[in-house]
Amino acid sequence: MTAPVEFFFDFASPYGYLASERIESIASRHGRSVLWRPFLVGAVMKVSERKPLVSIPLIGDYAVHDIERFSRYWNIPLAIPSHWPIATVAACRAFYLVARTDQAAAIQLAQALYRAYFRDDRDVSVPETVVAIAAEAGLDPAHLVEGIQSEDIKQAVRAVNDEALKRGVFGSPFIIVDSEAFWGADRLEQVDQWLSRGGW
Amino acid sequence: MTAPVEFFFDFASPYGYLASERIESIASRHGRSVLWRPFLVGAVMKVSERKPLVSIPLIGDYAVHDIERFSRYWNIPLAIPSHWPIATVAACRAFYLVARTDQAAAIQLAQALYRAYFRDDRDVSVPETVVAIAAEAGLDPAHLVEGIQSEDIKQAVRAVNDEALKRGVFGSPFIIVDSEAFWGADRLEQVDQWLSRGGW
Repeated sequence: MTAPVEFFFDFASPYGYLASERIESIASRHGRSVLWRPFLVGAVMKVSERKPLVSIPLIGDYAVHDIERFSRYWNIPLAIPSHWPIATVAACRAFYLVARTDQAAAIQLAQALYRAYFRDDRDVSVPETVVAIAAEAGLDPAHLVEGIQSEDIKQAVRAVNDEALKRGVFGSPFIIVDSEAFWGADRLEQVDQWLSRGGW
Repeated sequence: MTAPVEFFFDFASPYGYLASERIESIASRHGRSVLWRPFLVGAVMKVSERKPLVSIPLIGDYAVHDIERFSRYWNIPLAIPSHWPIATVAACRAFYLVARTDQAAAIQLAQALYRAYFRDDRDVSVPETVVAIAAEAGLDPAHLVEGIQSEDIKQAVRAVNDEALKRGVFGSPFIIVDSEAFWGADRLEQVDQWLSRGGW
């Protein structure tokens, strides 16, 4: 099997960010590529009647602690942003615009957006910030400004969200390996083992 | 430091059951004992406005799959019970009754109750079933029948629940190592590392 590992994530998800820093090396160890699939987890969470982690009594405080402890455990720099969570539709649209012509550049942009938000506290809900980060990554800002407002890119984001919902993708990160679904950065060890053993 | 590892759990929690099969060996590797602290997670979940996993759209089906996959991953026999979740107040009371005079016997009873429920589909919400399992473990059934109805044992269960809430214990399993809190069977690797390194 050489199907890519599907990596669903939301740009405002700290566990998604943590997973994004490890997923490529895990997949490549097993000769797999990664299909990056940003989506809007908030829309899906509405269906499962959930609220953002941080707004849940008791769990919110624990989650921040757990995320920071995870980042130190894996040696991945992370600072909880001043505004969290945020809307990530502009970041999503930028990703799919770039991915239409250049998958590798889209992945680089995704990593740059995640790092901008979770390392440098840049608010990627703001379209101008998304465009600035893309420009720093060598992409054409004028093309982005126009493209993220186009109907077909808006439709591409709606389509991935519809597909996520249909396939039971309800959280971020959500990783699918040969039809096997894993939810959470804390399942990466099992993802690695699944790729290695082909299941158990 | 030789403080015991505190192990909070609910008898109806499959992830708690999975953790219960590993926590003693993890702690003992680091020269620690385990303080078993069953509580009623449902009461605490009300405060954080949560519902049982299985009743949440999308997440419920995934959780069952994840639990079964985890049990195979760790080679721990598990079958989702016909009635799940259930009220576990009788099991809790039996535990604290036995623990009052014999901690080791209480731990054995806890393991027997967990296995009866998650391996043999015996409904441990029924007091008579709890007493039968205790009797099979060599405990005096008459003492249990009477003891689990006593006011001070009821009070002991209320007290552990109040303490759990006050200390931010909101889920099952919930493990505290030298003031450091870990939620979930999927944090056992970090619990092990925390005991080994003394934190990070």
